[in-house]
Amino acid sequence: MTLTSALGLPDDRRRQLEFLVAAHRLTEITRVNRLLDGTRSETSAEHSWHLALCAVVLAEGTAPGVDLARVLEMLVIHDIVEIDAGDVPIYDAAARIEIEALEHAAAQRLFGLLPEPEGARLLALWQEFEEATSEAARFARAVDRLQPLLLHWAGDGAAWHERGITVEKEREIMALIHEMWPPLWETASALIDDAHGRGMLG
Amino acid sequence: MTLTSALGLPDDRRRQLEFLVAAHRLTEITRVNRLLDGTRSETSAEHSWHLALCAVVLAEGTAPGVDLARVLEMLVIHDIVEIDAGDVPIYDAAARIEIEALEHAAAQRLFGLLPEPEGARLLALWQEFEEATSEAARFARAVDRLQPLLLHWAGDGAAWHERGITVEKEREIMALIHEMWPPLWETASALIDDAHGRGMLG
Repeated sequence: MTLTSALGLPDDRRRQLEFLVAAHRLTEITRVNRLLDGTRSETSAEHSWHLALCAVVLAEGTAPGVDLARVLEMLVIHDIVEIDAGDVPIYDAAARIEIEALEHAAAQRLFGLLPEPEGARLLALWQEFEEATSEAARFARAVDRLQPLLLHWAGDGAAWHERGITVEKEREIMALIHEMWPPLWETASALIDDAHGRGMLG
Repeated sequence: MTLTSALGLPDDRRRQLEFLVAAHRLTEITRVNRLLDGTRSETSAEHSWHLALCAVVLAEGTAPGVDLARVLEMLVIHDIVEIDAGDVPIYDAAARIEIEALEHAAAQRLFGLLPEPEGARLLALWQEFEEATSEAARFARAVDRLQPLLLHWAGDGAAWHERGITVEKEREIMALIHEMWPPLWETASALIDDAHGRGMLG
């Protein structure tokens, strides 16, 4: 007996609705980033939305010819595993490795709620993002790394101060942007330099 | 003097960053919908993310051949005007008409932060959604109407009870789904019927 059993809808549609209701729990996962008004933490659902917006905007000028639908699909689904596995900050490399098995199990469970072949398609898309095995995935990964940098910078570095992040550490974390999508590196580098120059990064 | 003046980046990139920081304020706009755990209202940023996810999932089976990149771009940007104009519930038809001029001014201001021709392109995309002048826009509008219905249903109708919504009123509001995208009507209708049968709708 599931939530949708009594709806009298075709099985495929029922399973899509089960997934969409389960996925809404991403609004209950909070991140290290705070909102720009400082009142509370950003949720992973909000982060996912802002990433998608960043991709729409930054694709113009930095990612011509990249499959934007694929990028947006990946950004919209990539954090759903946190519903089971929780969010691990990018600054905590050891915890990021530990969480991997949990995230894979979460992906199996959550995308497994969908009808086939859709569940398998979205699971493969999630893996493509994680493993950065396509041009679309590399652009998406770079945007996912740049967005917290932009927010921390716009929030006067409060998130960096709280965690005692140095400029060297920030450059090391953000090097992934250069690795994934060089055209975005100038932007990341300018934000880090400005943050450092204004004393936001130790 | 703007936020990004000192970054030493090309003007187009600076303006993109100004827009992305300003747009993050959509996380501060709250809606009538509550989260499924009941703890707080959904934000418009979270709503926008969940809409994009609904479109990714429901396109399979109900919108083959529709330009998904265009649908997702529209869903990701469509609520940004609420940063200036606020959110008006779908149940309040008079207020929805009153707010239109405010929303148009907000779209001009916010998309105007972007470099050209990108700002004009996103403004036109926002208008395409509002006026439902393309297949992609009609599918996106139907998804935007279906998502609160799904959430209210999954939340045992608390949002309907709070506002005293009857089944006739809900059918009237949701008729837009049939008008915009008939393949989604079976789903909307099943949710309304089930909600009515279980006493969630007066």
